[in-house]
Amino acid sequence: MQSVILIGNKAPIRYATAVATEFEKGADEVMIKARGRAISIAVDACQISVNKFLENVEIKEVKIFTEELENKNVSAIEILLARV
Amino acid sequence: MQSVILIGNKAPIRYATAVATEFEKGADEVMIKARGRAISIAVDACQISVNKFLENVEIKEVKIFTEELENKNVSAIEILLARV
Repeated sequence: MQSVILIGNKAPIRYATAVATEFEKGADEVMIKARGRAISIAVDACQISVNKFLENVEIKEVKIFTEELENKNVSAIEILLARV
Repeated sequence: MQSVILIGNKAPIRYATAVATEFEKGADEVMIKARGRAISIAVDACQISVNKFLENVEIKEVKIFTEELENKNVSAIEILLARV
């Protein structure tokens, strides 16, 4: 089961908590997605959840790419976390 | 030959130009490094350099991790670009 967490402009710890909750509810993988400035928040949230909140969860894949959004190119990141 | 570009707070296009220049000078690989809020700028710079400035260069690896800096934990990213 894979869950997806979309990162906005809240504090990273909010999203880190959301990620941990998904794993506690039974997710095998959680995908963290962010665009533009939220990319930094996504990386923070990922690091907090993996290093502080969760055990036996690791970063499986990190992808960066460009999305077209309202005719503008926006950078995006997808971080896939998975149980070891 | 590997070059390293450290990302600060300038506009992404500045760093994208720096990346392209390194490849033009003969680098086989360019490592883009950033911490904290500059992570978003790093991803932008990477996308601009790969999609607009360079041909036959691709993202080889993306790593995210935590660095301890002045007793504070800071998220960091390393994006390795390489000639195809």
